[in-house]
Amino acid sequence: MELPVQGIIPPMITPLLPDGKLDVQGLSNLIEHMITGGVHGIFALGTNGEGPSLSYGLRKELIQESARIIAKRVPLLVGITDTSEKGCLEIAHAAAQSGADALVLAPPYYMPISQAEMVGYLERLVPKLPLPYLIYNMPSCTKLHLDLATVKKAQELGAIGIKDSSGDMGYLYNLIDTFKNEPDFAIITGTELFLGETIHNGGHGAVAGGANFFPKLYVALYDAARANDNEKISLLREKVLEVYHTIYNIGENSSRFTVGTKCVLSILGICDDTMASPLKAFNGTDKKKMESYVALFNEYH
Amino acid sequence: MELPVQGIIPPMITPLLPDGKLDVQGLSNLIEHMITGGVHGIFALGTNGEGPSLSYGLRKELIQESARIIAKRVPLLVGITDTSEKGCLEIAHAAAQSGADALVLAPPYYMPISQAEMVGYLERLVPKLPLPYLIYNMPSCTKLHLDLATVKKAQELGAIGIKDSSGDMGYLYNLIDTFKNEPDFAIITGTELFLGETIHNGGHGAVAGGANFFPKLYVALYDAARANDNEKISLLREKVLEVYHTIYNIGENSSRFTVGTKCVLSILGICDDTMASPLKAFNGTDKKKMESYVALFNEYH
Amino acid sequence: MELPVQGIIPPMITPLLPDGKLDVQGLSNLIEHMITGGVHGIFALGTNGEGPSLSYGLRKELIQESARIIAKRVPLLVGITDTSEKGCLEIAHAAAQSGADALVLAPPYYMPISQAEMVGYLERLVPKLPLPYLIYNMPSCTKLHLDLATVKKAQELGAIGIKDSSGDMGYLYNLIDTFKNEPDFAIITGTELFLGETIHNGGHGAVAGGANFFPKLYVALYDAARANDNEKISLLREKVLEVYHTIYNIGENSSRFTVGTKCVLSILGICDDTMASPLKAFNGTDKKKMESYVALFNEYH
Amino acid sequence: MELPVQGIIPPMITPLLPDGKLDVQGLSNLIEHMITGGVHGIFALGTNGEGPSLSYGLRKELIQESARIIAKRVPLLVGITDTSEKGCLEIAHAAAQSGADALVLAPPYYMPISQAEMVGYLERLVPKLPLPYLIYNMPSCTKLHLDLATVKKAQELGAIGIKDSSGDMGYLYNLIDTFKNEPDFAIITGTELFLGETIHNGGHGAVAGGANFFPKLYVALYDAARANDNEKISLLREKVLEVYHTIYNIGENSSRFTVGTKCVLSILGICDDTMASPLKAFNGTDKKKMESYVALFNEYH
Repeated sequence: MELPVQGIIPPMITPLLPDGKLDVQGLSNLIEHMITGGVHGIFALGTNGEGPSLSYGLRKELIQESARIIAKRVPLLVGITDTSEKGCLEIAHAAAQSGADALVLAPPYYMPISQAEMVGYLERLVPKLPLPYLIYNMPSCTKLHLDLATVKKAQELGAIGIKDSSGDMGYLYNLIDTFKNEPDFAIITGTELFLGETIHNGGHGAVAGGANFFPKLYVALYDAARANDNEKISLLREKVLEVYHTIYNIGENSSRFTVGTKCVLSILGICDDTMASPLKAFNGTDKKKMESYVALFNEYH
Repeated sequence: MELPVQGIIPPMITPLLPDGKLDVQGLSNLIEHMITGGVHGIFALGTNGEGPSLSYGLRKELIQESARIIAKRVPLLVGITDTSEKGCLEIAHAAAQSGADALVLAPPYYMPISQAEMVGYLERLVPKLPLPYLIYNMPSCTKLHLDLATVKKAQELGAIGIKDSSGDMGYLYNLIDTFKNEPDFAIITGTELFLGETIHNGGHGAVAGGANFFPKLYVALYDAARANDNEKISLLREKVLEVYHTIYNIGENSSRFTVGTKCVLSILGICDDTMASPLKAFNGTDKKKMESYVALFNEYH
Repeated sequence: MELPVQGIIPPMITPLLPDGKLDVQGLSNLIEHMITGGVHGIFALGTNGEGPSLSYGLRKELIQESARIIAKRVPLLVGITDTSEKGCLEIAHAAAQSGADALVLAPPYYMPISQAEMVGYLERLVPKLPLPYLIYNMPSCTKLHLDLATVKKAQELGAIGIKDSSGDMGYLYNLIDTFKNEPDFAIITGTELFLGETIHNGGHGAVAGGANFFPKLYVALYDAARANDNEKISLLREKVLEVYHTIYNIGENSSRFTVGTKCVLSILGICDDTMASPLKAFNGTDKKKMESYVALFNEYH
Repeated sequence: MELPVQGIIPPMITPLLPDGKLDVQGLSNLIEHMITGGVHGIFALGTNGEGPSLSYGLRKELIQESARIIAKRVPLLVGITDTSEKGCLEIAHAAAQSGADALVLAPPYYMPISQAEMVGYLERLVPKLPLPYLIYNMPSCTKLHLDLATVKKAQELGAIGIKDSSGDMGYLYNLIDTFKNEPDFAIITGTELFLGETIHNGGHGAVAGGANFFPKLYVALYDAARANDNEKISLLREKVLEVYHTIYNIGENSSRFTVGTKCVLSILGICDDTMASPLKAFNGTDKKKMESYVALFNEYH
């Protein structure tokens, strides 16, 4: 894999059939849709991919099928976060065997742990990983906001980058600043809204959930930010904000981003909107509303 | 199983060998120690049992061995909380096949979910459970503080009680008040400090971590509270507070309760203090300190 | 003043006329109502007294009139908490000149400060206070949860007690435990629900908001707890819980306790329900609801 | 006053003499330093100005002296936030009489209030204000994060802008988006780090604390952002980040920004570093450290 990881790397949702099995045809449609849209990598089994909600069997099947369909056209990153170290390694090895390119690792998320306990965890786990890894900061799910010293320690232990989904822009800028002399350590934002700023200020890319459905929009913004084309940036940022105010704005649940993403994909005919428990697909009223929202973005379908 | 679940029900730690395998001899020692100490039930694979940190294989082995050793002398409750519904059911069925008496279920703990999403989760999951279940409120780990309406819904769906580890006494009193006309719905506190008040005010029992090492102390306080023996209650409460100020007071990590419990058990010669990742056993200095603390409670060894 | 401060000490609301001036007749009615009901002290200008919402002029008038009406029948405690040290001392001196008995002091509440900054604040301020003081833990308003070391420091600097309104029972028990050899240091709970437990376990009293309207209920529970009369305690606790589920349960605002208290007092004909900005009296629908709730407590009117 | 408020508007610290009185000479030095540095307005009695910690007398003196020294060269904005409505209006009228240009109003900050209570508060208070006002979002001090509907309501009630110090960039972008068709409603960030992004994306200015000591740095960044001069923006942003990592990085207290700002000003010979209670000036060691940090920014002195 070419380093550093960069560009638009959608956190791919996991297409499921109504009976809970993997929707292999939907997965194939989705991967083609994103690659055709210009994405620079695919991140499977993250939060948006409902990773922790899936059985190990389904996770392994998803990895294998994704690797097969992607066929090395773009890098495949695989989330291995788990509360059990054994489970974590099981997925990591499945990823390596299937030909994935890198792993993504957030803190184990049941026990509230300290920064020092997280460092100890990395020291024991990382030497057993069969692939390079990115550290994943996701405090709203894991309850641990990785501090800068922990991230530095992760990098010393071999991390090739960080995916930061804290939504904390001061922190993101601190990351960029801290690692500015380490050009091979990728700073990837998990907040779509920060895409322009991240690139503009020296970051490497964005794990943008919206690139599941409108990959061209996010890729265009990435390209404009790289080119310092301020006029285009302004125009595209407005579109990204509009996604926030419409597609991501149905109901009040935190899950509305992930549920909304699958809903758009089903409207676009790419895959079904079945969710893994504990999440649930939108009801008829919300789907109707989503249809009207999707129509606002015709140029990006 | 006699209903409601009541009395002192230790959240059993999971004895592990230095190589991470189950310490069957330590498990046997521990179970005998607790039953001899008078406990009224045993709760395996809770937070203190490091349930989510263990592989499914190890969890199933623990259930089987625990059921064999307990041999129906007291009820065995098994934690089945998991982020994957399939994993959750796998443990539930292993518990039923091994002869466990009830299940304990907290919200799936990766995705932040709403009360309504939790109710939907229960509606889908509970009909598939092979044993009666208690709902488990553990917001510091799961991020969801079950509201009263959700608990009522859980009861309508068949829950035989609640284990509340929120540490929120107003909430606990509200639970007791809400279910006072449902004598078969057990209100069990997960906060050792609230044991006396819980019993005094109409609750049924306590999942007291300290009953792993000093079962007699917590059983004596339970008996005194049932007998309204205020003098004894006062004396015993002071001892319970002393556990807080000494044994539970080493370091600042949230994990110090669980790590400290295994440390005491290793000092008492009951089992090893190996922790499951991401936790780590105390170092030499802390173990020395613990030895001096344990010595303060000679009468309860 | 006899030490320690103890018993039922209502956090007196401040009766206001519709034009925002002090309702002296209402104040007189209220004080007679509470003293007749058996309270052991009166705390003016706390949170329930809307202290920080009142001008210094009105605060001083309230102190003077309260002292005149109480006429030393019970101790008068005066809240002096303020963000400006000068304002704080101005109220303290007015209290001393009017014949108040003690001061109550919470952290200055605009700037988020550390425990060490709070200790420094006390070291500079306390020597200038003209009366004994109680330290006041009220984290939901001040953003600072006083830790045990800070409370100990406050006591070394002369505090004669603490009013704890954190709602954190473990903390309250720790306070009782920490100061058990300091019988002149009063541990007063600000959580009505904890009244029984506080007295039972060695605390001294309760700043119970409900004693504004039903002083006899809270005094009876205090007496029962002192006498270890468990049957009576049970009965009275149920009534106190019923206040929570009815009178304190109108709407969702944190202010519903204070607004609800004035509403009950206006229904009882004791004073008007005018609130100081930013709070607002209940509307007609809510007042109707409150009337039906008040009727449930006829025996305590 | 020309609308909208825009540019660099330092939240001026309040220079105090060691005896706590206003340091009029220091105030004069500071105002000249900032105006010479090119600032576009001055905001007195905000959080950085320790407004709530000062007596009304001192606040009024500060307003009068500031207005006299500024002499209409730039707009003077005055913070009137107070827990007492009367106090709030007293400062507002003093500001109007002294010739200030606008008021800045955050929620009353003792009682935790709801959005609806905040709207009611504005509806009652705003008609009594003698000058135009900006609404001030400062959740870390006031505990209330103004939601978009509340800000819109504030605007309908006459607000000419918002100062947002939430540090929440998604929120800031939502503000810009919400009011993009209201060019006279100023969106001012209170987070120095967001200065470039705010201007770039359609916001109007920054209340940048660092412009107390290095006004030229922040003004230069503002100018570069207005001119879309990306190379300059990059260079200057790095300097602003360096302020964060040095000057704003002494100790762990939230107050380190304000205490640090006065410390720099005393090193630059502009005014003393006396703080209003509850804050305290840095000790000798920290001042030494600050001297070395200040030396890093020689070009901006």
